[in-house]
Amino acid sequence: MSNSIGKIFKLTTFGESHGTAIGGIIDGCPAGIVLDFEAIQHELDRRKPGQSTIVTQRKEPDTVEFLSGIFEGKTTGTSIGFVIKNTNQKSKDYSDIKNTFRPSHADFTYTKKYGLRDFRGGGRSSARETANWIVAGAIAKQLLKNIKINAFTNSVGSITLDKSYHELDLSKTESNAVRCPDNETATKMIEHIKAIKKQGDTIGGTISCVAQNVPLGLGEPIFDKLHARLGQAMLTINAVKGFEYGSGFEGTKLKGSEHNDSFNTDGTTKTNLSGGIQGGISNGMDVYFKVAFKPVATLLQKYDTIDADGNAVTVQGKGRHDPCVVPRAVPIVEALTAMVLLDFLLLHKTNTL
Amino acid sequence: MSNSIGKIFKLTTFGESHGTAIGGIIDGCPAGIVLDFEAIQHELDRRKPGQSTIVTQRKEPDTVEFLSGIFEGKTTGTSIGFVIKNTNQKSKDYSDIKNTFRPSHADFTYTKKYGLRDFRGGGRSSARETANWIVAGAIAKQLLKNIKINAFTNSVGSITLDKSYHELDLSKTESNAVRCPDNETATKMIEHIKAIKKQGDTIGGTISCVAQNVPLGLGEPIFDKLHARLGQAMLTINAVKGFEYGSGFEGTKLKGSEHNDSFNTDGTTKTNLSGGIQGGISNGMDVYFKVAFKPVATLLQKYDTIDADGNAVTVQGKGRHDPCVVPRAVPIVEALTAMVLLDFLLLHKTNTL
Amino acid sequence: MSNSIGKIFKLTTFGESHGTAIGGIIDGCPAGIVLDFEAIQHELDRRKPGQSTIVTQRKEPDTVEFLSGIFEGKTTGTSIGFVIKNTNQKSKDYSDIKNTFRPSHADFTYTKKYGLRDFRGGGRSSARETANWIVAGAIAKQLLKNIKINAFTNSVGSITLDKSYHELDLSKTESNAVRCPDNETATKMIEHIKAIKKQGDTIGGTISCVAQNVPLGLGEPIFDKLHARLGQAMLTINAVKGFEYGSGFEGTKLKGSEHNDSFNTDGTTKTNLSGGIQGGISNGMDVYFKVAFKPVATLLQKYDTIDADGNAVTVQGKGRHDPCVVPRAVPIVEALTAMVLLDFLLLHKTNTL
Amino acid sequence: MSNSIGKIFKLTTFGESHGTAIGGIIDGCPAGIVLDFEAIQHELDRRKPGQSTIVTQRKEPDTVEFLSGIFEGKTTGTSIGFVIKNTNQKSKDYSDIKNTFRPSHADFTYTKKYGLRDFRGGGRSSARETANWIVAGAIAKQLLKNIKINAFTNSVGSITLDKSYHELDLSKTESNAVRCPDNETATKMIEHIKAIKKQGDTIGGTISCVAQNVPLGLGEPIFDKLHARLGQAMLTINAVKGFEYGSGFEGTKLKGSEHNDSFNTDGTTKTNLSGGIQGGISNGMDVYFKVAFKPVATLLQKYDTIDADGNAVTVQGKGRHDPCVVPRAVPIVEALTAMVLLDFLLLHKTNTL
Repeated sequence: MSNSIGKIFKLTTFGESHGTAIGGIIDGCPAGIVLDFEAIQHELDRRKPGQSTIVTQRKEPDTVEFLSGIFEGKTTGTSIGFVIKNTNQKSKDYSDIKNTFRPSHADFTYTKKYGLRDFRGGGRSSARETANWIVAGAIAKQLLKNIKINAFTNSVGSITLDKSYHELDLSKTESNAVRCPDNETATKMIEHIKAIKKQGDTIGGTISCVAQNVPLGLGEPIFDKLHARLGQAMLTINAVKGFEYGSGFEGTKLKGSEHNDSFNTDGTTKTNLSGGIQGGISNGMDVYFKVAFKPVATLLQKYDTIDADGNAVTVQGKGRHDPCVVPRAVPIVEALTAMVLLDFLLLHKTNTL
Repeated sequence: MSNSIGKIFKLTTFGESHGTAIGGIIDGCPAGIVLDFEAIQHELDRRKPGQSTIVTQRKEPDTVEFLSGIFEGKTTGTSIGFVIKNTNQKSKDYSDIKNTFRPSHADFTYTKKYGLRDFRGGGRSSARETANWIVAGAIAKQLLKNIKINAFTNSVGSITLDKSYHELDLSKTESNAVRCPDNETATKMIEHIKAIKKQGDTIGGTISCVAQNVPLGLGEPIFDKLHARLGQAMLTINAVKGFEYGSGFEGTKLKGSEHNDSFNTDGTTKTNLSGGIQGGISNGMDVYFKVAFKPVATLLQKYDTIDADGNAVTVQGKGRHDPCVVPRAVPIVEALTAMVLLDFLLLHKTNTL
Repeated sequence: MSNSIGKIFKLTTFGESHGTAIGGIIDGCPAGIVLDFEAIQHELDRRKPGQSTIVTQRKEPDTVEFLSGIFEGKTTGTSIGFVIKNTNQKSKDYSDIKNTFRPSHADFTYTKKYGLRDFRGGGRSSARETANWIVAGAIAKQLLKNIKINAFTNSVGSITLDKSYHELDLSKTESNAVRCPDNETATKMIEHIKAIKKQGDTIGGTISCVAQNVPLGLGEPIFDKLHARLGQAMLTINAVKGFEYGSGFEGTKLKGSEHNDSFNTDGTTKTNLSGGIQGGISNGMDVYFKVAFKPVATLLQKYDTIDADGNAVTVQGKGRHDPCVVPRAVPIVEALTAMVLLDFLLLHKTNTL
Repeated sequence: MSNSIGKIFKLTTFGESHGTAIGGIIDGCPAGIVLDFEAIQHELDRRKPGQSTIVTQRKEPDTVEFLSGIFEGKTTGTSIGFVIKNTNQKSKDYSDIKNTFRPSHADFTYTKKYGLRDFRGGGRSSARETANWIVAGAIAKQLLKNIKINAFTNSVGSITLDKSYHELDLSKTESNAVRCPDNETATKMIEHIKAIKKQGDTIGGTISCVAQNVPLGLGEPIFDKLHARLGQAMLTINAVKGFEYGSGFEGTKLKGSEHNDSFNTDGTTKTNLSGGIQGGISNGMDVYFKVAFKPVATLLQKYDTIDADGNAVTVQGKGRHDPCVVPRAVPIVEALTAMVLLDFLLLHKTNTL
């Protein structure tokens, strides 16, 4: 269950890494919107494998085909069905993991929960699923119009961008393979990833995201606070281990007198440690948050594990995997943010008659 | 909207800080369970104001009255309605904030979102709401039987417990006012809170939580991963700014070869950087996570802010507030954890025929 | 589970016939609405027992107490909690049914489903629950403003009002105890109910309902068609066995050329066999439907049944029950209709940006 | 919105009559079930156009392609995505209705609700959508194992089968084109439909459905009573105008002493006017109900209507349409019944620990 996200603008998805296709249904997309299909494909391209030397070298065109809900270029208000064909299903890459459980993967838990699993490429637990989210997120982005969402790589391993987003030119994010808007730091990150890759190893990192021009009033108390829904969304991304917004974990060390955001007379605040959200509702300031990604579990090294019968076995990791998931996750963070914001924008219309 | 949490075991709540009562409805509680009402009240007492010198000195008995769903001491499977009367409504404490917006509170956003607000004591945005969660969580705890949930104070400001939960005797958590299971650290934390309180200021902190004996298989891919729902739940607590599970933000600095949890032949893992969850599904190991709380926004100092007409005003903070929300939030973290786990335990029953 | 109705304007309820109180939480009520509390109480009075000689003679004041969500007379946009105390709990009336199952009641099924039941007065299965719906429906009615909802008794047993609602003066509905807007027919119905009551028996009937000034566009394809949600709502009322809208079951005998509603040039239709709904969406014409109520199962006669151990027993029915549920169900039908329409009115705001 | 049905076993659909494909996602299907794909196709064949001379002569193979959620022939517990290609899209048939609104169709309401519509063949409002339901229903049927669901044509226009289902051999339902298990009545119905068709006209009818071996305890009070959810499901079928279960509308004329179902000592009842449901919960007896279908709105006659600018126009109806929707709706009624029952069967597992 629970292959759906959103309350009004709602995405339901399906698909395994090595099945015929993945895809989804977007329900609740407002009618009459002219869609920019190139922009949707552009977002898919930002996520797709093989786009640089520091990501997985799998080749997948990741072309989305819309099957419904759009007529003469416009959304009709009915459900939008779409599929993305799986064109590069090297099942043989995975045949030797059929009967073993890869450490820190979902192999073990899926098998135990359901009694069986599609072992090819992670099956349903594969990050391939996130291509579906990109489609829905790219549509959401278009509907959000003036709201600008920018995610970027904040750290790779211990290499951290020591700047707030205010000090950065976010338009530079796409100018390098690691999607870090500071070219000097980006270069270090890329070198680090290349070194890690050479070891057959992987490395974690963090992504920062900022949403600007978010209108006041988005988010619903009590259990659907804006940051709670953003957090839930981010924590659904494969490999994510943490979420913080505004001052985050560092803010716990501050005193209230240091942390409070004083008002200007126009209702904006002088500082924004709140991260643009107060009481779970956007206050018109920038919404920003950070997401933690663990290192990818798939190694191109020998590792010890167990098979389905509980025997200890040694496996040689192989295949084509990301040494660091962070660069390709940047558009995913943006897509989910767009979906959550649009959902609340629509929900907010029902707060008053 | 969205005053509900849970899919099967579902809590819906109502209530303002200074209304007649707060309360809730628990839907989906399994039938035939003998409830321990003293245990429920005990949890409420752990959360209630006035229990020590380092928390707010408001006096509220916080007695829950069950109105339905229980017959001859057992749950009937029908909805459980309950109320907690508000007995200590000092509305006059708040009369001077009627027309001003307190910085980093929900005053401004509620007013702008809805066009009006109940200004007494934060109204619906008050943390008083969390007493409702304690009730549902205390019931959930009883249904979880062998699953043990222990939260404790991990840091207050910069004073941090530098130990993993394995090194601690969690039964000591309740032995001091700050709910830190290490007495030496606890003493430092208490002294710090007292000093902060004397300044009329407040301080943040973190809470760690560990759930033991969680059965394998809880959590639902894709969007209802166990940690995503735990994260959402924690992020709904007032003042929470961040959530991480397992290796969390620190884990982003590790390499995959350092981070992966190798299997023992019985399916347990040698390490547990995964935090007991793989692919969003519990793997039978301990589930643990950390929650970040900002300093409480209400200061007993003079502060500058604006009124409803956008005029700059200076206000003298007063009333009875927590200098640090963390000690009283410990049972709240446990309550929400219990609710989420029970919800998934019930949902898991539908995964197979 | 499933003590909730509605998607945006959402009512969740609790309460047993003979518990302390029944009540509910209304989530998603738009903010800033000035409530007319007398009008709410008026609707409760229309439903309450003891209002005439042809309904149950139980005396219950049915006074609603609002606990939250309303401030200085206006809705705040937060959840509205309310309770209605049970003041007339004659548990002794029911002591002898503790161990027997009344035929065509929910006694047997509740006991088997949950393993136990609150046997006092039907417990959760009692129609007392409908008082909660009246509260939410009365609020919904006020928000619907120009939309007029009129239900009335269409038949009692075989005594049927042979007129369309167009030929009736619906303002007369409240002028007699049976709530039939045709006084001549009403008199026959009342006499019939009195005769039935004298026998210790009960009788069924039907209620018609018409909603006028329903704006075009309410209802959501595919599974939330307006009539599907109205039907579901009506079928939740105790004793309801059927629902039809527009031409209903009789319409099945017609040919398409007889049944189709031709358009006028202003988009209205010359006839309205569609019942104001086409493709599940309101078309601006009157929405009308009919609801079938079986005779109440509780008889004041001797009857044969079984006890919890499967022994055949004979029981003498007693207590104070409605000989015909239809008159008191009229305001219930209206209340549910109002809730469904308001829910769709709010949902419709999200259909376009 | 609201292209989903079900709470645990949940179907979400998409697709327009003349788009590339229709399809859906089944979420919550239990894992480990061996699917019989021929049985699924068989159900699709029962619904598909062109199967006899009394239904539409469109030719559509209606072949379902599963894209996910099934591995090595078994359900995996993950979401099942499927598509049915639209192979026979004669858009030219509909070009002349592009700018006109067909009476008693959804043309007018969709256009007004959304500001535009896919005018080809009814777009999203087409009954083609029901093929999606057949797929999910056919899977549900397989999971229900011993529960037998049989629907059949009960009336066509005024030609009615005057027998209870007990007197019929339901295995004969498929032996004639109209799906009436009484061959004599079937012949009359077929003749009637042929005569109506010759006039370019259409005719309504009713379908009865009985579900046998339904276990005790299915259905959830208060708002998800078994019959309320069955009613909602049936009322979502195109052309349905009414639903009744058990004694239905006729039962309103009975006295309680005539209507009550006395118990046998084994908990079964001597009669079953309740329709197998008491208090919204199945009681172990047969669940049966009746569904009313209006005559199809599409006529092959000249008719008067209006165009998008409000001008009166005369249109010659053409194309290939069903003169009576009832025979092809029989498997649809069964499919929805299966889905609802399976959903409650799964939900029931959460009623106790």
